[in-house]
Amino acid sequence: MSIKSLLIGQPIETRKESHERLSKVTGLAIFSSDALSSVAYATEEILLALVVAGTALINYSMAIAVAIAALISIVATSYFQTVHAYPSGGGSYIVAKDNLGDNAGLVAGASLLIDYVLTVAVSITAGVAAITSAVPSLSEHKVLISLAAIALLMLGNLRGVKEAGRIFSVPTYMFVFSIFALIGVGLFKYLTGSEPSPAVPVEAATSYVTIFVVLRAFASGCSAMTGIEAVSNGIQAFKPPEPRNASIVLIWMAAILGSMFIGISFLADHYNILPVENETVLSQLAAAIFSKGPIYYLIQAATALILILAANTSFQDFPRLSSVMAKDGFMPRQLGSRGDRLVFSNGILILGLVAAGLVVVFKGDPHNLIPLYAVGVFLSFTLSQAGMVRHWLRLRGKRWRRNMIINGLGAVTTAVVLVVIASAKFLNGAWIVVIAIPVIVFMTKKVKSHYDSVARQLSLEGAPRAVEYTHHSVIVPVSGAHQAVINAIRYAKALSKDVVAVYVCFDPMETTRVKQKWNRYGMDVPLIVLESEYRSVIEPLMEYIDGVRETHKGGVITVILPEFVPQKWWHHLLHNQTAWLIKGLLLFKRGVVSTSVPLHLEE
Amino acid sequence: MSIKSLLIGQPIETRKESHERLSKVTGLAIFSSDALSSVAYATEEILLALVVAGTALINYSMAIAVAIAALISIVATSYFQTVHAYPSGGGSYIVAKDNLGDNAGLVAGASLLIDYVLTVAVSITAGVAAITSAVPSLSEHKVLISLAAIALLMLGNLRGVKEAGRIFSVPTYMFVFSIFALIGVGLFKYLTGSEPSPAVPVEAATSYVTIFVVLRAFASGCSAMTGIEAVSNGIQAFKPPEPRNASIVLIWMAAILGSMFIGISFLADHYNILPVENETVLSQLAAAIFSKGPIYYLIQAATALILILAANTSFQDFPRLSSVMAKDGFMPRQLGSRGDRLVFSNGILILGLVAAGLVVVFKGDPHNLIPLYAVGVFLSFTLSQAGMVRHWLRLRGKRWRRNMIINGLGAVTTAVVLVVIASAKFLNGAWIVVIAIPVIVFMTKKVKSHYDSVARQLSLEGAPRAVEYTHHSVIVPVSGAHQAVINAIRYAKALSKDVVAVYVCFDPMETTRVKQKWNRYGMDVPLIVLESEYRSVIEPLMEYIDGVRETHKGGVITVILPEFVPQKWWHHLLHNQTAWLIKGLLLFKRGVVSTSVPLHLEE
Repeated sequence: MSIKSLLIGQPIETRKESHERLSKVTGLAIFSSDALSSVAYATEEILLALVVAGTALINYSMAIAVAIAALISIVATSYFQTVHAYPSGGGSYIVAKDNLGDNAGLVAGASLLIDYVLTVAVSITAGVAAITSAVPSLSEHKVLISLAAIALLMLGNLRGVKEAGRIFSVPTYMFVFSIFALIGVGLFKYLTGSEPSPAVPVEAATSYVTIFVVLRAFASGCSAMTGIEAVSNGIQAFKPPEPRNASIVLIWMAAILGSMFIGISFLADHYNILPVENETVLSQLAAAIFSKGPIYYLIQAATALILILAANTSFQDFPRLSSVMAKDGFMPRQLGSRGDRLVFSNGILILGLVAAGLVVVFKGDPHNLIPLYAVGVFLSFTLSQAGMVRHWLRLRGKRWRRNMIINGLGAVTTAVVLVVIASAKFLNGAWIVVIAIPVIVFMTKKVKSHYDSVARQLSLEGAPRAVEYTHHSVIVPVSGAHQAVINAIRYAKALSKDVVAVYVCFDPMETTRVKQKWNRYGMDVPLIVLESEYRSVIEPLMEYIDGVRETHKGGVITVILPEFVPQKWWHHLLHNQTAWLIKGLLLFKRGVVSTSVPLHLEE
Repeated sequence: MSIKSLLIGQPIETRKESHERLSKVTGLAIFSSDALSSVAYATEEILLALVVAGTALINYSMAIAVAIAALISIVATSYFQTVHAYPSGGGSYIVAKDNLGDNAGLVAGASLLIDYVLTVAVSITAGVAAITSAVPSLSEHKVLISLAAIALLMLGNLRGVKEAGRIFSVPTYMFVFSIFALIGVGLFKYLTGSEPSPAVPVEAATSYVTIFVVLRAFASGCSAMTGIEAVSNGIQAFKPPEPRNASIVLIWMAAILGSMFIGISFLADHYNILPVENETVLSQLAAAIFSKGPIYYLIQAATALILILAANTSFQDFPRLSSVMAKDGFMPRQLGSRGDRLVFSNGILILGLVAAGLVVVFKGDPHNLIPLYAVGVFLSFTLSQAGMVRHWLRLRGKRWRRNMIINGLGAVTTAVVLVVIASAKFLNGAWIVVIAIPVIVFMTKKVKSHYDSVARQLSLEGAPRAVEYTHHSVIVPVSGAHQAVINAIRYAKALSKDVVAVYVCFDPMETTRVKQKWNRYGMDVPLIVLESEYRSVIEPLMEYIDGVRETHKGGVITVILPEFVPQKWWHHLLHNQTAWLIKGLLLFKRGVVSTSVPLHLEE
């Protein structure tokens, strides 16, 4: 108990739950870290996919970046409408479930849960890559550093991060300003000709290869779009008018994300930067523009910090979504209850452990994790937009046709991109997610059907009224006459007038001794001696119990097992565990309840 | 249950325990397999220790063999006296404990237990070496074959090996005759000059090295002496007059062992056989004398069989010794009880698992295991002989001086050999045993002191007479009104007139609903609502229970926990385990007993 409070602090009372509302400036900092931080790796992923075909295709990178920026604006517009239509919070799970039914909701929910886990794994490993780019000697410890970062986030979130807004503003804005400074200075240096213009690529590639490589690069770049839906989940966190403020923050975020992404991709192209093993593209770019001085290290630090913040948002989204799904009966009930510090502790633990597992399996390298990433994101986008289409069709409110077309465009676009990503990256790891989503959906449905069946079976409606038992027999199996047994007999006499002690005989001499002792100490409870042919206590005892059950139909039987509680754990190994075996067997006998009466040993 | 009876057979009734007595011929077969089988590896171990110094010291092997044969006759004479002095069975544990006290007995017991484990590991791996010498292609699977052999022995002994004597006679006598045939034909061929006389070794070694190497070779050769005490443990298994028959078998065994050992060592020396990687010395010798025809394969088969039998004797000795120690309170009580098939199942399982672990750790190679072997054997020899010296000193019967001198000579000789073995082989693995023996002794003493303390605490002598409780309060913590709860209430009403249901309130709305339902279904049991500030059921409940305990001093409290038993194991994961937590906490509250009342779910 004390280790727990040292790590996560003292329990907090329920009524102290805070209801702080966010301004647009802090709201942007809180909800955009996931989306904005992805520019730290998205450009690099595009380049990495293109260089597979040699340098010939490198200059496609700008075109891909522009296409993704266009996609960002389509998706953002689509979510703009969701924010206004679901002012109480319109996550993909809720929108899809409300409009398209449970199955669509569960698919969206499974996609999002996977997405949150991957956000932690990708952001932390990319953040560590920013650190090891600046301090290469740390690079051999990258897995360890990533695991330590996840452990810290877990602990911080189990404590419940207070004053979150103000702390979060610092690295987010530090990152935004430093990236814009990088782009500005980089563009200036490029335009004033102080840097060389890019060499024209000369290698050629066949057109099949070109199409496939470019599609895969596009799919990789789509990792920039993760987190764009974050605002739509948290509308109620904003100051009123909530939908208006939230939607403005959404547009700001999309604009900043789009321009940072295009800017970095443009500069990487024109500064001839190619992905290398132990340094990120952003680090190379910063070094090329500012050389490795204080400003370079500031950019790396801001990058690492915003990526860690991005991971932190998942530590709030994952437990919240699983608690919503748990309340709907699709997830184990334990995910829906708040812990000592008013947070959903179980969800935080599960997320941290699964993400840590992924970091270990994928050797702490974000490049290995990214192919898994975008499938879940775009599946939830598609379902959410499709749900909105259905929403407008059903409600037919003001300007419903226009709204429906906008969300329809979003749905179709993201569906097409989803297919592109899943197929282009299938063999690189997307298959894992393609399998995992239906598996999770299947599990959630099994969970739900179990809860439903339990609720049916526990219901009192229409069931016959309970009647009192007509008789209560108490049976105490004894191994002799000693303190633990007498303690149990004393308790048994408090339960019923009908108490018997049962002794299983192995050795007639011993039995005679026990009988004599019983006459003296047995509190006038009759001792019944059963014969055992096979040196087992169990069979004769069970037969006796069955006999009593036959005699007193409509009655109930209590079997009292004398037990002693030793002082040290290893003492348990030194005693027969027959009592456990008897309890286990009695659990399946109806009309029989077993009780252990503990005697506490002092030494 | 059915898998168990398939593997080990149906339970056997206690009265069917057999009391078959052994003739001298079957007695020799049963008790000598451990001792006789060691000639399969003892000569090889001597040679292996000598060749470390080149071939210069090889011709010491005969001298060492003769020394060990002399040692065998000393030890056998000493045990001859033990057999007559302890006709009911004079194992080292009993002789040392009776005459030298508990500590000496425990040291002897620990040594023997270790010795039995090593007998299994060494004999099985040596038996597999006999097989792989004949069929070299099996040699890469030697660990697997050894483990399979141990598993078979475990199963066989768990079933209880019947008609043991007659089956055991076959391989033992087959081995004895084939080894004597080998020696006879080998000697004949050597003496008639049809084989080359040995090359005279030319290499030299310094005298320090010589002494150390020869002592180590002697220590290795002492592995031939394991099992020589077997007869003294099982005197009562012989036909009357038991001590006389047993002692005659002991002398036979020593004579056969000594002559086989000297014979093999002599031939190995004169046929210039040196230890090689994948073929045993005995296999090379048999091949040299008979070439690889049917007789060769017969010898290998007999060797493998007798070694497996030797391992089998440990499967009877280890459980028997641990059951004796368990009855004295020095081992967990479970080792003292017979299983379904009248054998000490727990001891058999422990022996098999530990021996299998040793085979894996030491890579299935008997050469790696032998350095651990002889320490335990000679320690138990020494203690047993020393105990006999004390025995004669105390009793001073007929010819006690002569008897004491014989046992004293045995004790001193084996003590000297023990020191030689432990120091010469210390770094090769003997250190493990030197550490393990005091550790086991310490554990046995801890076990004994726990049992003594429990017996003291459970004793009824002198303790105040038990009085009946003055009051019985029943408390049922409920999570609402449903079948499982009503089932528990129904049971509670059978226990006492004073029953209350306790509900912990998190949400006032929900509480009102529960109260209404309770009025309808609650069987007129009062519902007490407790407030919780920290979303925990535990604290308010515990406070309430403490309050009731204060009110009814001299009374007892039963806490009834409604529980439902799901159909599938994974369903448990889907329910809060609060009931378990409550039970765990109540275990440490005196005057409070907790009971789960199960409701069985149908689906």
